[in-house]
Amino acid sequence: ITLSGVTGALIDKGNHRHFMQKEIFEQPVVVAQTLQSYIRSVEQQVALPQMDFALSVIERVTIIACGTASYVGLIGKYWIEQLARVPVEVDVASEFRYRDPVLTPNMLGVVVSQSGETADTLAALRHMKAGGVTTAGIINVPTSSMAREVDLLLPTHAGPEIGVASTKAFTCQLAVMAALAVNLARAKGRLDASEEAEIVRHLIEAPAAINAALAHDAEIEAMAHTIAQARDVLYLGRGPDYALALEGALKLKEISYIHAEGYAAGEMKHGPIALIDEAVPIIVIAPSGPLFEKTVSNMQEVRARGGKVVLISDTEGLAEAGEGCLATIEMPQVHPLIAPLVYAVPVQLLAYHVAVAKGTDVDQPRNLAKSVTVE
Amino acid sequence: ITLSGVTGALIDKGNHRHFMQKEIFEQPVVVAQTLQSYIRSVEQQVALPQMDFALSVIERVTIIACGTASYVGLIGKYWIEQLARVPVEVDVASEFRYRDPVLTPNMLGVVVSQSGETADTLAALRHMKAGGVTTAGIINVPTSSMAREVDLLLPTHAGPEIGVASTKAFTCQLAVMAALAVNLARAKGRLDASEEAEIVRHLIEAPAAINAALAHDAEIEAMAHTIAQARDVLYLGRGPDYALALEGALKLKEISYIHAEGYAAGEMKHGPIALIDEAVPIIVIAPSGPLFEKTVSNMQEVRARGGKVVLISDTEGLAEAGEGCLATIEMPQVHPLIAPLVYAVPVQLLAYHVAVAKGTDVDQPRNLAKSVTVE
Repeated sequence: ITLSGVTGALIDKGNHRHFMQKEIFEQPVVVAQTLQSYIRSVEQQVALPQMDFALSVIERVTIIACGTASYVGLIGKYWIEQLARVPVEVDVASEFRYRDPVLTPNMLGVVVSQSGETADTLAALRHMKAGGVTTAGIINVPTSSMAREVDLLLPTHAGPEIGVASTKAFTCQLAVMAALAVNLARAKGRLDASEEAEIVRHLIEAPAAINAALAHDAEIEAMAHTIAQARDVLYLGRGPDYALALEGALKLKEISYIHAEGYAAGEMKHGPIALIDEAVPIIVIAPSGPLFEKTVSNMQEVRARGGKVVLISDTEGLAEAGEGCLATIEMPQVHPLIAPLVYAVPVQLLAYHVAVAKGTDVDQPRNLAKSVTVE
Repeated sequence: ITLSGVTGALIDKGNHRHFMQKEIFEQPVVVAQTLQSYIRSVEQQVALPQMDFALSVIERVTIIACGTASYVGLIGKYWIEQLARVPVEVDVASEFRYRDPVLTPNMLGVVVSQSGETADTLAALRHMKAGGVTTAGIINVPTSSMAREVDLLLPTHAGPEIGVASTKAFTCQLAVMAALAVNLARAKGRLDASEEAEIVRHLIEAPAAINAALAHDAEIEAMAHTIAQARDVLYLGRGPDYALALEGALKLKEISYIHAEGYAAGEMKHGPIALIDEAVPIIVIAPSGPLFEKTVSNMQEVRARGGKVVLISDTEGLAEAGEGCLATIEMPQVHPLIAPLVYAVPVQLLAYHVAVAKGTDVDQPRNLAKSVTVE
């Protein structure tokens, strides 16, 4: 198995206790590397590799992936619909390939995979290609099957990812997804040069903001001991933060074996709120902005029922709603387009430190393989 | 609050211990009532109420709902895409209304709601209407706000539903969704008269098949004591049965407060399988058919890791894969289009009996309201 495009790189843990920890802390560098290959800083433009089809004709996007990569799809849906006004459908590969999906002309099929070998995603890619769909792939291993077979390869430059729980591949995939959304928006005539330049400025700030998020490591480690006592944890968010809630829950499940579940904050009242009592910590992911008030009101419902809340927000959000929480984690104030890359960090660190506190095998969690090449 | 179109009906529990139990057992009758108003048995045709727009021009369907009703949407996506070859998007209302969704001409917006008053769904409906989208509503209360505001009202005839956990409204919504899928398929020229007549024959069989499923009540009650010991339960399925897995998990959460979660069977390997040990029962919903082998292979992975499986399948499926399970529940052999209406029954009964075994307040679970008219 070839693990990386960074061939010959020495793979060790450096000063870190686990590969996962090392990979979390590599994110400012690898996200910068990845962004660099998609940004023309002089022109203040986002650029994709040469392609032999026109993005301007795309009328519908379908994003297919598994696990963590599928949450990149959910965030991509949000971005592409907002910026390019093209409808986007996201599906997990194992569902997509067996449901005889409707393939239409002028559809772009996007696969997202760290390894480029995930069996279900590869089969979905081949199904789309056989149906005449133009395909793109956000892939970390440039020599992989998917990388060879997509019409447009959009590489991530995360370097080899050893920890089974994906971290740096996720944020690099998000960076590339943002570049794709911006390009599609420009191709569809929805973004002028000054708007694009502004987005480029924000994207360039992402590595520094990720760095600022990493500075909360010790604080998150301290609260991890409380969360590690829990049998159940819920994660809540709206919009792109709903996808991060799913990612936070998956990460915690994977490495700490705590039954965590992510929920769209507005869906809590339709059932899951019955689970809430004093023993269930709720992690709320809510940057300030238009969705903030709504999520805070769901958070208050949870607290009224004894739920203990960890609120991840920015200065403005914490000033407004941080009081009375079990804990708060303060993120830098960032543009909505880069917020998911930044808010991914506390979510990863929390899962990591909870797993360490529980004494599980962080880099090789039970029952899991790094690259799922069987169906 | 007006609860029902069946005005003047006497609302009591009859011989049942709880409203939820009564409503589960009413399903053969109310599904038959509902189907009757959508089937012309002489012509062997499915018919919708008069509408002032043409279904033939619909190029895209968006289904919006909350909680249990949103799973009707997931099953509807499967049916509509299969039969009518029109792409379908499903979204929970609280996410849809805040994400500035892309509304396109020739789009049909479908809302699903028992009460017709669910705040987020009503807001989503109004958002679509304001954007010029043609709308339909699958609604149980004909005097509700949504019933008045949709372009095409598709009533369910479930009668008043008192139990907070929706049961008979769900299967009636599925019956109407099937009728919509068949109509759309015919309007799009994808279904000839003989194919439609065959589907009608299968739909007419649904109430009897639901009755046969109800006959397993005592058996499910007996196994409920084992499940009631569990702290965590996973539900697995593929395709429409993935939606039933979500519904089963939601139902169990709502009334028994056990942390249950539904998963697409193919996604297990991408994280949640780390949760599996001897203490976590897995409910697998898998009728025989093209997806069966794949789901069974996921089930074997779970069992190899100590997971205890309850397999819900038909005679053929149980003969092939029932051995070694903690328990099996045998459903009648039915057409794929009505299978979700039938397989919903054991899922409801299991949640019901587990809750009774735990001694929770089945009809009025903690923290929940019947109709969520706040955001």
